[in-house]
Amino acid sequence: MHVVVNAAMSADGKLSSRQREQVAISGADDFDRVDDLRVESDAIVVGVGTVLADDPSLTADEGVNPVRVVADSKARTPLDARVLDDRADTLVFVAESAPNRNVRALREAGADVVVAGNGRVALGQAFSELESRGTKRVMVEGGGELIFSLFDGGLVDELRLYVGSVVIGGRDAPTLADGDGFVERRSFPDLDLDSVERVDDGVLLRYLVS
Amino acid sequence: MHVVVNAAMSADGKLSSRQREQVAISGADDFDRVDDLRVESDAIVVGVGTVLADDPSLTADEGVNPVRVVADSKARTPLDARVLDDRADTLVFVAESAPNRNVRALREAGADVVVAGNGRVALGQAFSELESRGTKRVMVEGGGELIFSLFDGGLVDELRLYVGSVVIGGRDAPTLADGDGFVERRSFPDLDLDSVERVDDGVLLRYLVS
Repeated sequence: MHVVVNAAMSADGKLSSRQREQVAISGADDFDRVDDLRVESDAIVVGVGTVLADDPSLTADEGVNPVRVVADSKARTPLDARVLDDRADTLVFVAESAPNRNVRALREAGADVVVAGNGRVALGQAFSELESRGTKRVMVEGGGELIFSLFDGGLVDELRLYVGSVVIGGRDAPTLADGDGFVERRSFPDLDLDSVERVDDGVLLRYLVS
Repeated sequence: MHVVVNAAMSADGKLSSRQREQVAISGADDFDRVDDLRVESDAIVVGVGTVLADDPSLTADEGVNPVRVVADSKARTPLDARVLDDRADTLVFVAESAPNRNVRALREAGADVVVAGNGRVALGQAFSELESRGTKRVMVEGGGELIFSLFDGGLVDELRLYVGSVVIGGRDAPTLADGDGFVERRSFPDLDLDSVERVDDGVLLRYLVS
């Protein structure tokens, strides 16, 4: 299984402002690129924070839609979230400690709910489950907490990073990789910069994870 | 006066880990580039946070050293800081509210201390003072709080950004532009991506501020 993290960030590493409202960082060409990547993927994964902040539909404009996957430890995905609409299948990974009522409601809303892990979704276990279901290509669309956890778990194969020509700022604004962060230099995930390409007004950096 | 912000950040926008220890993000070629930029500058500006965290000398390996400038509202620069050594002149901007005792001690340590602003250093006023002293080229070396304030004040002409091929992560790790952050899309400083160049294992992005 090949896992690609795809994200657009400002030149100062932010996914959005401190108010966590969705911000247009890239442009039309990058949107097309992201759409193509979605169509090529078997599964699109986001954290519940992204569902709560942006309410994305995670569908492509054209073509067959991949399964939408939410890492949602406490089963907080709202029942009216776009990610639960009938444009594609939806799989929600929850932790054992997720409230039963929420889990039941998500199932009634049509989601496939799978338990992986105790207090938090065990991402390695979740990704093994995806693989066991025949998933070959996974696209991760954020947010920064999920992306950090995936790097921390050694679960990322590739990073496609659009760097927009804008400054957002903010010590509390979400960044590409939040979480607790790495501390020791030797624990930092090293990347291989595979390609550099100008797209829209910014630059697309493609990295392979060493 | 031309103001260049120069910084190296990880692929996720961090200047260092959450412990704020200095981290090697770039390599030898980028160090040489930074050294050249220092020699071409008349003044090198940092915030006191950078002095406290990294204790940089802010001198070039060769050539004439530019004046070192610290934005230090409360006059907290330690008297044994490298930035106060005799390898170059040092100008410390403080706010009116800075403790007199600290200001006196900094002067006794050889620094030129100039008051600009009340509770915090008024950066526009400080930069006007630099310009009135004949400063033509200013290089800003961080940290993220100062860089945000300079963008907020419309004081940046150019950004030279080395993006290292590494992930640091951490919601509390310092980023290229911290501060309160911008909220409205129309208030975000827009950049023009002028050049893209591979340097060491990463990429150097050069932006002009629109």
